[in-house]
Amino acid sequence: MSITDTNFNERLEKQINFIIEIDKIKSIIRKSKIFDGSRFENDAEHSWTICIMALLLREYSNTPIDIEKVITMMLIHDIVEIDAGDTFFYSSERKNVHDSEKKAAERIFGLLENDQKDYFLDLWNEFEEGNTNESKFATVFDRLEPLLQNYLTEGYTWKKHNITYEKIIEKNRHIEQGSKVIWDFMKILLDKAVEKGILEREGRV
Amino acid sequence: MSITDTNFNERLEKQINFIIEIDKIKSIIRKSKIFDGSRFENDAEHSWTICIMALLLREYSNTPIDIEKVITMMLIHDIVEIDAGDTFFYSSERKNVHDSEKKAAERIFGLLENDQKDYFLDLWNEFEEGNTNESKFATVFDRLEPLLQNYLTEGYTWKKHNITYEKIIEKNRHIEQGSKVIWDFMKILLDKAVEKGILEREGRV
Repeated sequence: MSITDTNFNERLEKQINFIIEIDKIKSIIRKSKIFDGSRFENDAEHSWTICIMALLLREYSNTPIDIEKVITMMLIHDIVEIDAGDTFFYSSERKNVHDSEKKAAERIFGLLENDQKDYFLDLWNEFEEGNTNESKFATVFDRLEPLLQNYLTEGYTWKKHNITYEKIIEKNRHIEQGSKVIWDFMKILLDKAVEKGILEREGRV
Repeated sequence: MSITDTNFNERLEKQINFIIEIDKIKSIIRKSKIFDGSRFENDAEHSWTICIMALLLREYSNTPIDIEKVITMMLIHDIVEIDAGDTFFYSSERKNVHDSEKKAAERIFGLLENDQKDYFLDLWNEFEEGNTNESKFATVFDRLEPLLQNYLTEGYTWKKHNITYEKIIEKNRHIEQGSKVIWDFMKILLDKAVEKGILEREGRV
């Protein structure tokens, strides 16, 4: 499909088609609400927030990082949800979605010419695997945003899905590998959430 | 205000307050609709789109650019609209909003410590002034997205505000300074929009 119906620039037409396709993430609704609690957030908004966070808080990375790589990863990390949908971070289905997300990545990045397809696919895999300094740092913000959202909306998602303090600690402990400072900050917030009565501890019900 | 109510890390608390404040751009609604035409876009979504565009289309910059600077500019360029509101690009009021946007930038970036306040204020000014290679390239995408949005939604904003082909050419000609290739692409799309009857030419009514 060519948007201009001309032979002007085939590569650019593919890039524009990709831009049009990924616009669909604006309709992928997440489980958490924006900070003012007025509505649920979508994937495009989430991606914008974590990019700003990474730029602003880069000084807290445990290791030197290539920030351009971090930002690029974050901008595209949720694109696969156009086909695979948003899966709740604490859901037991989380393990099973990887195949459908991989297929989605192939299809969507496959709209581009091979050099760019490979570049974005590699970055997306790197983020998913979480083994490099950049992907470890990117993950920090993918987790920090929903934590702040829950903290600021009276534990909305935590309460709705019975997420306990212990479960959050267990599932987010790897944040420490990206940023010790931010992990310490997150733990303080979680303690405070328990104190405020918006987050339950296990065995206390 | 301290979100943790502790002395844990004053600098980080300021950064988090900044993140919370700028979340408000998710409620600043623009004049154009997302590509599927289902609703208007907000500033956070717009910022995400133009960042991806710049990364994907960097090869079309007229000059070498520092892409990290371009992306950072784009991520924060609309933050001032939290106080100053969104002004329509073709409105005659556009000239008068600069003072209120400047005040907004001072207040919002002023939530950060001075080194980061200055860094973001300088980048915001650089984008507004549009004199550097990076700001010229960033502007390309700030204009390309609404053009694509109008093209894909039957000229929604163009028709609603009586925007003609000539006016668009006049107000967007500077795009050529950032990317000759993308300006040529935009002109082809505009010609096509006229051909399809979703954009009027002057003196033809």
